[in-house]
Amino acid sequence: NISVNVFESKIPFSEFKVSEAGLIPVITQDYKTGEVLMLAYMNEEAYNRTVTEGRMTYYSRSRKCLWLKGESSGHYQYVKALYTDCDKDTLLAKVRQIGPACHTGNKSCFYTGLLNNEYKESDPYRILQSVYGVI
Amino acid sequence: NISVNVFESKIPFSEFKVSEAGLIPVITQDYKTGEVLMLAYMNEEAYNRTVTEGRMTYYSRSRKCLWLKGESSGHYQYVKALYTDCDKDTLLAKVRQIGPACHTGNKSCFYTGLLNNEYKESDPYRILQSVYGVI
Repeated sequence: NISVNVFESKIPFSEFKVSEAGLIPVITQDYKTGEVLMLAYMNEEAYNRTVTEGRMTYYSRSRKCLWLKGESSGHYQYVKALYTDCDKDTLLAKVRQIGPACHTGNKSCFYTGLLNNEYKESDPYRILQSVYGVI
Repeated sequence: NISVNVFESKIPFSEFKVSEAGLIPVITQDYKTGEVLMLAYMNEEAYNRTVTEGRMTYYSRSRKCLWLKGESSGHYQYVKALYTDCDKDTLLAKVRQIGPACHTGNKSCFYTGLLNNEYKESDPYRILQSVYGVI
């Protein structure tokens, strides 16, 4: 019961600046909350599949193959918007995330804080976000 | 008139998985709005300076030197929180961004949409965010 959008890309993959291995990093963000979920990589085929099928497909550097996110777990990422940056060497995807993004079961892969006195997210803005989550 | 926090890192840089060049990608996000501002890279010295000085310092791959973000423009990024991901090969920084993050004058480097029928951010949640921006 999920509406899948399929797209065309305004810019072909060949215009992106890729690594020697032909890969470009992709930041994946929850389209509603803005939470950064993960960073992964795409090659040209992964990019084209993502755009035409409307679900995030990456290139797995460890397994050296295409990786349709959610294929085994069911935790698909449906594409809502896709951006490149000013020098075309990074992508940003806004997605509807089904279930957790992280294989550990966390919503986001970035659950490990590094600092000992971090900013606590208790300001009114975050409270408004929490309120919206409930209503 | 900005309070600068200085930190200690719970995890030393040597525990991160870095590229052959000794670099790790860093996603930088506005700590209040959640907007993704840019992606850049750090080496060990850039990471340690960022943590101890409380301002984002990257390693410039093109200029091959440390790069205190804002040193020439004044558009500093003050560290609010820092995370690593589940496999410790990416960092996420939440920052207070002074001025635009992008050298083009855009707030974020990710201002180029790639799709022809993207999701429009007109839902109630975004409207609440805009309202908060005004009040």
